[in-house]
Amino acid sequence: MLSQSELSSIVKGDPVDHFLLIKKCELRLTKSSKEFLSLELGDKSASYASSLWDDIPGFKSIKNSLAVGDIVRIAGSMDEYQGNPQIKIESIRLSKQSDDVSPKDFLPKSLRDLNLMKKEFTDRMERVNNIELKTLMGNIFSDERFEKYTLVPAGKMWHHGYISGLIEHTLEIIGICDLMCDIHPEINRDLLVCGAMLHDFGKIEELSYEPVFEYTEKGKLLGHIVISAMIVNEEINRISDFPENLKNNLLHLILSHQGKLEYASPVVPKTLEAITLYQADELSAKVNAYKNVIDNEIKPGSNWTRFISLAGTDIHSHGIKNSVDIKNNKTLFD
Amino acid sequence: MLSQSELSSIVKGDPVDHFLLIKKCELRLTKSSKEFLSLELGDKSASYASSLWDDIPGFKSIKNSLAVGDIVRIAGSMDEYQGNPQIKIESIRLSKQSDDVSPKDFLPKSLRDLNLMKKEFTDRMERVNNIELKTLMGNIFSDERFEKYTLVPAGKMWHHGYISGLIEHTLEIIGICDLMCDIHPEINRDLLVCGAMLHDFGKIEELSYEPVFEYTEKGKLLGHIVISAMIVNEEINRISDFPENLKNNLLHLILSHQGKLEYASPVVPKTLEAITLYQADELSAKVNAYKNVIDNEIKPGSNWTRFISLAGTDIHSHGIKNSVDIKNNKTLFD
Amino acid sequence: MLSQSELSSIVKGDPVDHFLLIKKCELRLTKSSKEFLSLELGDKSASYASSLWDDIPGFKSIKNSLAVGDIVRIAGSMDEYQGNPQIKIESIRLSKQSDDVSPKDFLPKSLRDLNLMKKEFTDRMERVNNIELKTLMGNIFSDERFEKYTLVPAGKMWHHGYISGLIEHTLEIIGICDLMCDIHPEINRDLLVCGAMLHDFGKIEELSYEPVFEYTEKGKLLGHIVISAMIVNEEINRISDFPENLKNNLLHLILSHQGKLEYASPVVPKTLEAITLYQADELSAKVNAYKNVIDNEIKPGSNWTRFISLAGTDIHSHGIKNSVDIKNNKTLFD
Amino acid sequence: MLSQSELSSIVKGDPVDHFLLIKKCELRLTKSSKEFLSLELGDKSASYASSLWDDIPGFKSIKNSLAVGDIVRIAGSMDEYQGNPQIKIESIRLSKQSDDVSPKDFLPKSLRDLNLMKKEFTDRMERVNNIELKTLMGNIFSDERFEKYTLVPAGKMWHHGYISGLIEHTLEIIGICDLMCDIHPEINRDLLVCGAMLHDFGKIEELSYEPVFEYTEKGKLLGHIVISAMIVNEEINRISDFPENLKNNLLHLILSHQGKLEYASPVVPKTLEAITLYQADELSAKVNAYKNVIDNEIKPGSNWTRFISLAGTDIHSHGIKNSVDIKNNKTLFD
Amino acid sequence: MLSQSELSSIVKGDPVDHFLLIKKCELRLTKSSKEFLSLELGDKSASYASSLWDDIPGFKSIKNSLAVGDIVRIAGSMDEYQGNPQIKIESIRLSKQSDDVSPKDFLPKSLRDLNLMKKEFTDRMERVNNIELKTLMGNIFSDERFEKYTLVPAGKMWHHGYISGLIEHTLEIIGICDLMCDIHPEINRDLLVCGAMLHDFGKIEELSYEPVFEYTEKGKLLGHIVISAMIVNEEINRISDFPENLKNNLLHLILSHQGKLEYASPVVPKTLEAITLYQADELSAKVNAYKNVIDNEIKPGSNWTRFISLAGTDIHSHGIKNSVDIKNNKTLFD
Amino acid sequence: MLSQSELSSIVKGDPVDHFLLIKKCELRLTKSSKEFLSLELGDKSASYASSLWDDIPGFKSIKNSLAVGDIVRIAGSMDEYQGNPQIKIESIRLSKQSDDVSPKDFLPKSLRDLNLMKKEFTDRMERVNNIELKTLMGNIFSDERFEKYTLVPAGKMWHHGYISGLIEHTLEIIGICDLMCDIHPEINRDLLVCGAMLHDFGKIEELSYEPVFEYTEKGKLLGHIVISAMIVNEEINRISDFPENLKNNLLHLILSHQGKLEYASPVVPKTLEAITLYQADELSAKVNAYKNVIDNEIKPGSNWTRFISLAGTDIHSHGIKNSVDIKNNKTLFD
Repeated sequence: MLSQSELSSIVKGDPVDHFLLIKKCELRLTKSSKEFLSLELGDKSASYASSLWDDIPGFKSIKNSLAVGDIVRIAGSMDEYQGNPQIKIESIRLSKQSDDVSPKDFLPKSLRDLNLMKKEFTDRMERVNNIELKTLMGNIFSDERFEKYTLVPAGKMWHHGYISGLIEHTLEIIGICDLMCDIHPEINRDLLVCGAMLHDFGKIEELSYEPVFEYTEKGKLLGHIVISAMIVNEEINRISDFPENLKNNLLHLILSHQGKLEYASPVVPKTLEAITLYQADELSAKVNAYKNVIDNEIKPGSNWTRFISLAGTDIHSHGIKNSVDIKNNKTLFD
Repeated sequence: MLSQSELSSIVKGDPVDHFLLIKKCELRLTKSSKEFLSLELGDKSASYASSLWDDIPGFKSIKNSLAVGDIVRIAGSMDEYQGNPQIKIESIRLSKQSDDVSPKDFLPKSLRDLNLMKKEFTDRMERVNNIELKTLMGNIFSDERFEKYTLVPAGKMWHHGYISGLIEHTLEIIGICDLMCDIHPEINRDLLVCGAMLHDFGKIEELSYEPVFEYTEKGKLLGHIVISAMIVNEEINRISDFPENLKNNLLHLILSHQGKLEYASPVVPKTLEAITLYQADELSAKVNAYKNVIDNEIKPGSNWTRFISLAGTDIHSHGIKNSVDIKNNKTLFD
Repeated sequence: MLSQSELSSIVKGDPVDHFLLIKKCELRLTKSSKEFLSLELGDKSASYASSLWDDIPGFKSIKNSLAVGDIVRIAGSMDEYQGNPQIKIESIRLSKQSDDVSPKDFLPKSLRDLNLMKKEFTDRMERVNNIELKTLMGNIFSDERFEKYTLVPAGKMWHHGYISGLIEHTLEIIGICDLMCDIHPEINRDLLVCGAMLHDFGKIEELSYEPVFEYTEKGKLLGHIVISAMIVNEEINRISDFPENLKNNLLHLILSHQGKLEYASPVVPKTLEAITLYQADELSAKVNAYKNVIDNEIKPGSNWTRFISLAGTDIHSHGIKNSVDIKNNKTLFD
Repeated sequence: MLSQSELSSIVKGDPVDHFLLIKKCELRLTKSSKEFLSLELGDKSASYASSLWDDIPGFKSIKNSLAVGDIVRIAGSMDEYQGNPQIKIESIRLSKQSDDVSPKDFLPKSLRDLNLMKKEFTDRMERVNNIELKTLMGNIFSDERFEKYTLVPAGKMWHHGYISGLIEHTLEIIGICDLMCDIHPEINRDLLVCGAMLHDFGKIEELSYEPVFEYTEKGKLLGHIVISAMIVNEEINRISDFPENLKNNLLHLILSHQGKLEYASPVVPKTLEAITLYQADELSAKVNAYKNVIDNEIKPGSNWTRFISLAGTDIHSHGIKNSVDIKNNKTLFD
Repeated sequence: MLSQSELSSIVKGDPVDHFLLIKKCELRLTKSSKEFLSLELGDKSASYASSLWDDIPGFKSIKNSLAVGDIVRIAGSMDEYQGNPQIKIESIRLSKQSDDVSPKDFLPKSLRDLNLMKKEFTDRMERVNNIELKTLMGNIFSDERFEKYTLVPAGKMWHHGYISGLIEHTLEIIGICDLMCDIHPEINRDLLVCGAMLHDFGKIEELSYEPVFEYTEKGKLLGHIVISAMIVNEEINRISDFPENLKNNLLHLILSHQGKLEYASPVVPKTLEAITLYQADELSAKVNAYKNVIDNEIKPGSNWTRFISLAGTDIHSHGIKNSVDIKNNKTLFD
Repeated sequence: MLSQSELSSIVKGDPVDHFLLIKKCELRLTKSSKEFLSLELGDKSASYASSLWDDIPGFKSIKNSLAVGDIVRIAGSMDEYQGNPQIKIESIRLSKQSDDVSPKDFLPKSLRDLNLMKKEFTDRMERVNNIELKTLMGNIFSDERFEKYTLVPAGKMWHHGYISGLIEHTLEIIGICDLMCDIHPEINRDLLVCGAMLHDFGKIEELSYEPVFEYTEKGKLLGHIVISAMIVNEEINRISDFPENLKNNLLHLILSHQGKLEYASPVVPKTLEAITLYQADELSAKVNAYKNVIDNEIKPGSNWTRFISLAGTDIHSHGIKNSVDIKNNKTLFD
């Protein structure tokens, strides 16, 4: 297990003595035609550029073998080049078995406790009443798939773009959906909650996240919406007498959950559950995205981010403190 | 107080003996040049066309005085013309003081109990901790304004388009916002909840709802967003030392709550609270709208509505029943 | 087999003595409260309104049993009401077994010979070289499915909206695709042609066409693109060792063939075959659509159609005759 | 005539001994205030940056005279700077008459044989039956104009952006149009084919391609569509009794061939020929564009291009080989 | 010359004794199969429906000969049907030579004095300094063309849609352009003013206005922008040594004057004069359009029009009176 | 008062001995880890990059204190780096009281005489006839606010982006509006002119311009449209008996003046005055923007700017000279 200070906390001049993940790696020539490696090195808190010069011990042996996804131990210091932080390398070595480090240790990760999230998810699954849906959920979230499902990020960037981001995001949506069912008894709660659990399920095949987050070939050619629908279709076909109406409505929830054709949903929401799921997804995603942007894109001394094109605006952190909160965390409907 | 069967429950051939509201009224000529009144008559459940012929007793005295908003007592029967229901009038008289009926009795109304909603709203207002915001809320929701606020619909059509629709809608949003604050402690709860309470406040001047729902001249020229902002601005100016930062952020919540310039917000959401309010508003509005459309636009024997242009689709009622619900109305985060 | 003059050739005053399909059927009341049936009657050439009055022999026995999809024998004459043609019924009876007529006889139909089209399709399937694809095609186009496939229209309206429209349309696309492969050897011909054959295959479940063209519930909730992809996915899974790369690329062709997200494709074309298929589909569809509109929407004495909203314009028939054609029907590349 | 290895085949470290075209040329200062020329040098296969330092023999005489469009003979080697290839110059001289090289030798060029393409074009022109159109074609494609027409590229980039690109593109469109005429006898073949021949004709005045591809002032102010229409209008006016109807329809084909107002067509397609030409143009252009992007933008070791904004996606080369092709290059309709 | 009260001033019950223009004319059958003519009759102030029954004297002789564009003398009275005014005909006869009426008398017409507008236009033409442009203007505005130019409307509807609407509109634009030249001496005044004079010139071939406003076949296939450009191009070619630069810039003004590709300009404004002309055209057109809509679409008792889709809103007449105006009403041309 | 040559007139090699404004200032490290200040220095004519090295006298004392908005006296020369001009600093000192220079001297400024513009504005204000509007104008344009109003730019870039840009822009609009009132007596002149004066008034709080142009926090959260409306609302509330109708119409002019929702107006123009103001604003803004772009973005030897994204095109300076202008240059205000 990795235990070292976070890279983002190291400032110019500080020593660096860290295991770091290779995120980019390219062999180049200087103007005077000497070889060097242009690297990007990072842990889950930050990633910085670095150059590995040919006078570093072991350069020859390492220059052709080093690859994206390798973990290296770096000694050196934090430097700066043209206003951007950069790591000055004094020595480098590849990690060994005995170092007990793994690429996963270097990826950004949900701040919520994973076991707690797993328990919340399986508990909620238990509370599904409809027999066919409960059976289906059990089959789909088999051990192996559930493992992947609880690790995959919800995306490469924008919202919940970190390990276990998808389950964190899904739990938020379920919470919102349950609240909407409390308000509107016309909504079919089981159908909606199962749709929420499955809506982004295809991301386990659309995204790879080790050693770095990347779209798979299948993901780029088919997209996670259709992958989800094809898996759910297969699993439903294995259950005898699964009602046709229920099948079509569950698949409709998955297919329509991005809400608009131009957001890549092949059908728009046509049922009460479908519109609820789409809007709950939007609410969870946008709030998380704004929160991340505020965390990551505000420079010291400012309270505005740069222009964020996905939001169509720069985003503001007003800094107005929350008043002491006298037991507010019950919802209005308790 | 009005007590009679709902108009929507009367079928062809049934007698009609009802107080009804005049919703349209026009004096016309038949082909043979006889005068008649072309009327639309309704209660809160339905509105139907009717013709008042010149051989009805009292036609002469009534033909020039009858006006939109009047209440009349009709005796006659339910008929049909070219496939549409129509009321056949045998006698008509204007309502009198002693009938104890008022136009409000004939408008569609929230199904939730108004006193309970008022209590939920004022209770939640009590739980605002920030002193300046609490003072401001108290001043704005003075008795007279609060009265109007609790009656106004959220719109003419689409979502929450009935008496007390705005407060019902606002309470839903507050519930969603409180849930999001439970998940994300970074959100300023007081600011967000006050923004939610005020976001559509200007509708009390934008819409008139007696005797029928209509946009006011001011509403059409300025819009409820700017009306809200101008009132809040005035009220804040009356409070000495109201923090400038808090003022700008509260106004920003109101101005940006429709989320996009093309939806008539003059600024887009630039803060965490603003994006939360916009998405919570969307969630509440869209779910309510779909529910209403399913209630009102599905004909017997079908389970699809006509094409609904605001939704960009026809909408489906799948009819899959909710399973027996074993105590699910706690949210995931209790 | 039906043999009678086409309804579209009957003019005002002519007698009508025809088997006709009931396309709409509604029981209504006249102003004087007498019952009548409001009908739409048609054959494959035209459809007209008609009223069945209560003084027609047999009215009582027929009024509650007549339904959409029934075939009736009508005697009467061609009439007109408010400028629109209308059938005046003098007698009516339901068709009998011995009449040897079926709803299919009354639906618009491709003008091309169906057996010839079937042969062209299966011949072309034979010419697929890739073993896995050839196996897959054979499995998918099983006898039963092929039967449906050769009857289904390509849509309810706009282009190829008639019986056997889909196979006619698909053959055009295959012709265009083969030409593009002749020009560009970089295109994988087998992949492209199989993609063309399968691209709209899901329409056999999206559309019903007996007795009238209609979208199915499944069709409206899932759409033919995803239905196609799910069937092809299932069939591929039945073939052992079907190459993953080939599978993803074939599914990509189906998913991306409408070319743009806003046209309901969940992914845009990302390969050479995908862009070719999309553009070939567009070419075939648009030319057919313009041809149909010119055929159906130009009134005598004019050479312009009304404004056609799917085309965004009114459409013109210039009437410039083709010169005598001296053996031009070889393409440039023969 | 130029005979030397293609620049794109030279790798880092290889000697360079080539005639190359100057594509950009700028006099600059180093940090230490020494002058150097910043150049872009290329042949038809590739273009690379290069710096001409002041210690190269002849620098003084050359530094103020060298200009875009000049051909120089370079001796040196292939180098690299910051990951990009760059030519290291050891000596340079301007080309001489006796070198027998011309700028045209350095521009990208259609891979099809030009004489064959000319023959195909004139043969097809011969097969036009309509007398007026045949006369018009003969007049427009006079020797001088035809010469230009057969050299001009179809654009600066995206599709057919190389010498003789326009005629190659036009021949493809004619092939597609003839196929569509075979399928649909309602299309006026002569009108459509002449429209295809003329649709981009104005590019001979919109684009200059010697020594480099560039838009002309006239091209930028008027656009090739209107230039085409004005030339065709002038030429038609020279033919007495050219039918007005035919004139308007031919001009309409030219004006509407980009299919949508937002693509710079001042009218949308309103005839069967116009919609066919637009869709055939799209098919030819898009397939060529994807092919070029795959050729030029896929880096070794990858099978995806960068994000191509004109396509709205990154593009994939799947690498699935064509099966042995058993005589498929007849179209379905032979 | 026509001298009678305006049709719009006749109210229900008043006698009608007017020459009126036939705007629509269709032979129909009543339910009882009697023939009648369904007409639209109007003068320049209004148009109303009317039915000509078979018991009107002369019905037989007139029923097959009456045509759109004919002028008839009607005696009868103003009536109403289903809330809309309608003319009840008692007798009808075709107009005769001696009646001295012409279709032009029945078309809406500019309220400004035509001779004054002609004088303003030719005076302004005189003030063009540039020799080539002055010659060109003289040639283009030959007597015959100028006659047409001064009669043609600027459109069928929306703005300046009446006889002499184009010259009225053009004079407004010239006034605005001259003001902008006063402010910005960088603008080439002659170029801009000539561009303004010519910008919609092609409408003399795009629109026909006798006996009713209609688009011509040429107008629909080519559009007035390209027609203008082709005429100006021809006329410039007749002037020897007309500067190429000036030609391209003048044509650019015509081609770009609708400002955006989606408004049918094939190029967008790229020069100072082009942007000025586009914005001046918009200003003149939009203000005139709003004025007309307010005049024609506000019903008594209201101060709002219906929803006007070209404006995207309903339009308001506030009725706030102008204060006494102390001598501001000199135009720029005084 | 500053008196020195304009920075834009200094060419490479010339000495620099100027007071200049610090527009950007950042402390950085060289590759060899030496500190330097990366600066942007400018006057109102131009801004250039510069590096302040650690061997310049006083570097130590200045490096941490220098800030954006400071004025410094620079001695050095004009240099160039990678093709861009750059100032080589030999000595630097902060400006002193006795230098009598202020940041305002270094900002771009309207070329029109400010006192003349003030007089034009107040004279026009005097000519308002409506009593309530005249009172309101007097109150709003109090001395202090008027001072700010006459200095603020109309924007950060694009049009009138310089000191006193707003008043220059407003006067142009007033001129155009008065002309439109001359043409259309239906327009309420007082209302329109007051709307023009106030339309961008909120920019005095939205923009700060000393020492550099910047949006304020309030400006970013509320926008100048709503700020304008809130101020005008407050001032109207101070005037007793200000007519409600007039108030709503004046506020409507401000709110709708950007013409479309997507341009951030919360309502679209619904009155004759509103559409006039919007189009007059567009005309003034676009012409000024094109003029500025032509002034600033055309490099020597070219007559085209780069692609200007706000215009959606590159812009052309044709260079065709104005003919001698015979007395057209009186403005409307003469």
